[in-house]
Amino acid sequence: VSYRLFYWPDLQGRGEFVRLALEAAGADYEDVARRRGSDKGVEAMTGRMEGIARSSFAPPFLEHEGRIIGQTAAILLYLGPRLGLAPNDEIDRLWLHQIQLTVSDLVAEAHDVHHPVGTGLYYEDQKPEALRRAAEFRTARIPKFLDWFERILDENPQGPAHLCGSSLTYADLSMFQIVEGVRYAFPKAAARALKKTPKLVALRNRVARLPNIEAYLDSKRRTPFNESGIFRHYPELDA
Amino acid sequence: VSYRLFYWPDLQGRGEFVRLALEAAGADYEDVARRRGSDKGVEAMTGRMEGIARSSFAPPFLEHEGRIIGQTAAILLYLGPRLGLAPNDEIDRLWLHQIQLTVSDLVAEAHDVHHPVGTGLYYEDQKPEALRRAAEFRTARIPKFLDWFERILDENPQGPAHLCGSSLTYADLSMFQIVEGVRYAFPKAAARALKKTPKLVALRNRVARLPNIEAYLDSKRRTPFNESGIFRHYPELDA
Repeated sequence: VSYRLFYWPDLQGRGEFVRLALEAAGADYEDVARRRGSDKGVEAMTGRMEGIARSSFAPPFLEHEGRIIGQTAAILLYLGPRLGLAPNDEIDRLWLHQIQLTVSDLVAEAHDVHHPVGTGLYYEDQKPEALRRAAEFRTARIPKFLDWFERILDENPQGPAHLCGSSLTYADLSMFQIVEGVRYAFPKAAARALKKTPKLVALRNRVARLPNIEAYLDSKRRTPFNESGIFRHYPELDA
Repeated sequence: VSYRLFYWPDLQGRGEFVRLALEAAGADYEDVARRRGSDKGVEAMTGRMEGIARSSFAPPFLEHEGRIIGQTAAILLYLGPRLGLAPNDEIDRLWLHQIQLTVSDLVAEAHDVHHPVGTGLYYEDQKPEALRRAAEFRTARIPKFLDWFERILDENPQGPAHLCGSSLTYADLSMFQIVEGVRYAFPKAAARALKKTPKLVALRNRVARLPNIEAYLDSKRRTPFNESGIFRHYPELDA
């Protein structure tokens, strides 16, 4: 096994952005916390979060050739060239990374919609706050983020088939996950916003039809969305 | 002028992490939105946020040799080697970037303490929510982040004077800003947490005494902390 991914086993969460890259590239990887055996399982993951050099603040993190790399966008920055999912030019790579960091911002905000008070409490204990936060997220933030992604597709000199350059990158894969996520969590608000971003929807559809991604989505390795992840469907938060 | 930084003029905010790097290196830069004249001021900044290729989702962003680079941590990833504030090795650079991305996470959480419902409303319109969020931030999140930074200093094979390697990096400068920020916003909670992170405090003190940083802090270029920035002092949120 070349790559060992460490992330919570029962949800898509931030780990899913890394899984999609590994799956699209057909990489030889192990989703360690989902396996059983010695040096596997959730214990193997939490064990690597202290007492070793350069341990990460939080999952996901990746182990490769004796290195540990944390932070979703940094993992993808590392994996991109190795998996053939990033451009060759340094400045193009930085642009791709900048797009991914903006994905991370959207993901953090999507999480905070159901946890506006903090991660230490259940959703049920912060519902009034979540109702208020969801309103702004639906009406202002989802459209603002999706419009920005649409604009990038629109302005790509190599055409709107990809975010950067003329071939598939890890950020294209992340766009698939973002569209799926907002559709799952906020079906009404997402439908409204996505009507204005046809190129983003077309990209999502192309990614869904990539043979490796299609096989992954049909497999047990793709955990369904659920109410432990980043994108959670609480009907009262949508409108 | 080599570097042109675009950020809101009247607050430290996320731009300050970039300013500290430019100032420590004695770089030739212009803080564009703070200047007057053609192609300067806030209008020059907002003008670069649409209608041009690769415009950023939000400030800060940097213009250098015709490129525009956004996202604080990505700007520092770009500037680090150019300003002599990053190690040479690719994997060490990625580790440094990973630390900076965790700084970004802390900054986002510090902001959300006073804006738990959203950025579209004033603090005064989300005070009950902020009071709840602040409690978890003070008791759980500040210690967790600061302990992680302390551990990195502790485990640096080159010694605890720096986060990575044996010389100054942009992340060391960011540690100064983080310590200053939590002390300003949450003086009581910060004092408690920082008692347990002596190496982090020592690093903050060394950074404050760097000649270029000392000169910067004494200049008008250093905007004082205020209640428009990320770190805001609302006494009711501290304890």
